[in-house]
Amino acid sequence: MTNPVLAEVLRGTLVESVHRGSVAVFDGDGKSVWEIGETHRPVFPRSAVKLIQALPLVESGAADAYGFGDRELALACASHSGEPLHAETALSMLLRAGLDETALECGCHWPDNHAATIAMARAGGEPNALHNNCSGKHAGFLCTCCHSGIAHEGYVKADHRLQGLVRDAMEAVTGAAHEVDICGTDGCSIPTYAVPLRNFAVGFARIATGNGLQPERAKAGRRLMSACMAEPFMVSGTGRADEALMKAAPGRIFVKMGAEGVYCAAVPELGFGIALKCDDGAVRAAEAMIAGVLAKLLEKDEPLADELRKLAHKPIMSRNGAKVGEVRPAAFAD
Amino acid sequence: MTNPVLAEVLRGTLVESVHRGSVAVFDGDGKSVWEIGETHRPVFPRSAVKLIQALPLVESGAADAYGFGDRELALACASHSGEPLHAETALSMLLRAGLDETALECGCHWPDNHAATIAMARAGGEPNALHNNCSGKHAGFLCTCCHSGIAHEGYVKADHRLQGLVRDAMEAVTGAAHEVDICGTDGCSIPTYAVPLRNFAVGFARIATGNGLQPERAKAGRRLMSACMAEPFMVSGTGRADEALMKAAPGRIFVKMGAEGVYCAAVPELGFGIALKCDDGAVRAAEAMIAGVLAKLLEKDEPLADELRKLAHKPIMSRNGAKVGEVRPAAFAD
Repeated sequence: MTNPVLAEVLRGTLVESVHRGSVAVFDGDGKSVWEIGETHRPVFPRSAVKLIQALPLVESGAADAYGFGDRELALACASHSGEPLHAETALSMLLRAGLDETALECGCHWPDNHAATIAMARAGGEPNALHNNCSGKHAGFLCTCCHSGIAHEGYVKADHRLQGLVRDAMEAVTGAAHEVDICGTDGCSIPTYAVPLRNFAVGFARIATGNGLQPERAKAGRRLMSACMAEPFMVSGTGRADEALMKAAPGRIFVKMGAEGVYCAAVPELGFGIALKCDDGAVRAAEAMIAGVLAKLLEKDEPLADELRKLAHKPIMSRNGAKVGEVRPAAFAD
Repeated sequence: MTNPVLAEVLRGTLVESVHRGSVAVFDGDGKSVWEIGETHRPVFPRSAVKLIQALPLVESGAADAYGFGDRELALACASHSGEPLHAETALSMLLRAGLDETALECGCHWPDNHAATIAMARAGGEPNALHNNCSGKHAGFLCTCCHSGIAHEGYVKADHRLQGLVRDAMEAVTGAAHEVDICGTDGCSIPTYAVPLRNFAVGFARIATGNGLQPERAKAGRRLMSACMAEPFMVSGTGRADEALMKAAPGRIFVKMGAEGVYCAAVPELGFGIALKCDDGAVRAAEAMIAGVLAKLLEKDEPLADELRKLAHKPIMSRNGAKVGEVRPAAFAD
């Protein structure tokens, strides 16, 4: 089976490029609500499951011990843009555990936010691991280790105790086995496991509803999801889709992008979890798809659905600032 | 019909993302040599046809009048990375026609080359239109106007005389009508026309062989193609695929990328023109596809084919510099 076209790119009035994909919407009891394409196909979730990977941070008591509020918890679930507040918050998390950026094993890159990169270069600066879009997640990993008395060196490796805790949480929440033969390495050096797309939808429905989770895990998941919805900038960054989508309906929509065109999301008031993958890995298309799916699921709230549909259509501009095309969801979202 | 998968992205040993596309290889007599997927489908060629768009620069006598050599002609066909030599050469072209960067109507953006952007910001600089990846093409347009006594203001508009010359060249070389109903606007504000992919393959076979072209046009086309093959850095930039592919076989391979996953290419010794489009517009995939196609077409030259196959496989690195995956052509190239 070939997945259908879920997003298209227009130039003038003509379709210039198309993006195929699959979408799974499930409830907290594991019941299928809406599926498009091959939702049984294994997918690397990449950064879309950072919230689940952050469960040990809360469950271990580390988050409370270090006094983390919504900002820190949101950053632990983030793919942030490396803006100053992101890097400063990641550092403050590490300092509370008696560490600093030298403990991070995620590697280093210039901020994803272009203005932040230019400002850093103008000031004669250089990026460090705090500017890596995953530094919040890694700071959370390190805090979990320190609080739990686990030696943190090598915490990114699949056989480290910390990654064992993360894998246990992933398996319990998604209901899918995470074996070594489906393991790849993420850009920030931690393991990522390819499991069927639908399992991620079930997992985020469980987080949103608490169904099928131990009480402590349900509480921790809800707390992390609330933190992300309360601090959408910390989860993403200036002008990013995740921030805009969560700001469109504060406390009602959770979304998290992952590299290679993945999204995980939840709508707590409906009790639904959502997972989608753009076949070709395009972020622009995955953004249009998730906004289109959310607009459809929330269509009874007309003003919100209108706002989500607007966010699903992203103009393509010429270098002179004229609109010359757009990225938009395909017919599935009509 | 659905186009086949022509490139795939691996993480570890698993396929993470796939890219579909179509490929057309034709000879200078318009005969089909090798086709994959829907080669009749109209495609915006974007920057992949800059060589054809530069024909008026040579045919008008402007290139000779201003003393342009391979470097300037290659830059007129380029999507360059905004490195200092690119911007300086574009300016020098304009100065010879009595103009400067203020005449450019392509708009402005930071250099596509990251190191050039950082260096510019560190020096307190700001980009201008010379750093736009299309500034060489636009400098060529302006020089054509000045030499031909055409008022250059508004030269980017579809109804300007310069764009009429460009459109005439495009129609003659590709053999496809360029009408207003298939016209979109490119990122640099000039018109781009969607015509069947196979017509671009025929066009570049004609340029490579001279077949089907008026003698003056054949000579101008061959001169531009030779210039690009002689100065691949001027056509692209540091570390880019176009430079690497043309350097792999000096004078024997012409390639030019276009936005949204397009490539046009030619192998003069075979008399073939090539055009391809990645359905979803991904540059990484189009690069793997064109290298795979060239390796296949040139497989009798084993060392060259090996080198092209190597270039077709691009590693994906973690932020710590470890190889965690790769982009590669799909089975069509085996």
